Amino acid sequence: METFTYRRDCPSRTVVELLASKWVMYVLAALRHYERPMRFNELRRVLDGITQKMLAQTLRALERDGLVSRTVYPTVPPRVDYALTPLGADVGRLTSAIAGWSLEHAREIVASRADFDARDELPPV
Amino acid sequence: METFTYRRDCPSRTVVELLASKWVMYVLAALRHYERPMRFNELRRVLDGITQKMLAQTLRALERDGLVSRTVYPTVPPRVDYALTPLGADVGRLTSAIAGWSLEHAREIVASRADFDARDELPPV
Repeated sequence: METFTYRRDCPSRTVVELLASKWVMYVLAALRHYERPMRFNELRRVLDGITQKMLAQTLRALERDGLVSRTVYPTVPPRVDYALTPLGADVGRLTSAIAGWSLEHAREIVASRADFDARDELPPV
Repeated sequence: METFTYRRDCPSRTVVELLASKWVMYVLAALRHYERPMRFNELRRVLDGITQKMLAQTLRALERDGLVSRTVYPTVPPRVDYALTPLGADVGRLTSAIAGWSLEHAREIVASRADFDARDELPPV
């Protein structure tokens, strides 16, 4: 068995920490779902609750990491498309699996939370 | 094609949001890696950089969601073991796949960041 490698200075941690962001997961999932490049406002519309600032930050982080490409078309006004790179499509399979699992098990987990909270409210014996 | 379902009030979002936590990912990965129940201090030792408070919060959230079980043995001092439940083991496969992918692609992503940052520093033409 390998040594468990999550040392603070392990470069993979910076990647886990990118992916451990709900908006990163949702942007990757949306681009995978629609299977085509999308514009900023279109992404904003489908990602219920995201702010303009948070979407801009998320897309910039994904572009910086090479997971999303940004293409500017010289129209007036300029048109900007965001698309998954091959690397982004690859990790998108994994983040979408998490989103799919969450949907599939949401009911079970919400029930577990209710049990836990009810149990927690009992006085100690 | 199904409608894209990430509405703000979708219960699966609360599950995605649990999993979109680096410490949740690391705790699930550690319990999977060692393949046995672990004590609090043992988890704390292998998760470089986690604080006592953050580990306690993470374990409590995982227990509340039914992904980790907590067993107290009536010894002096009491011994407390944390273990994956079947549901936790199931989602642990997915979060570990993300951690594995991160390790495998860390070099590529760190290089992409360096390119992006260098490009970003160029004066506009």
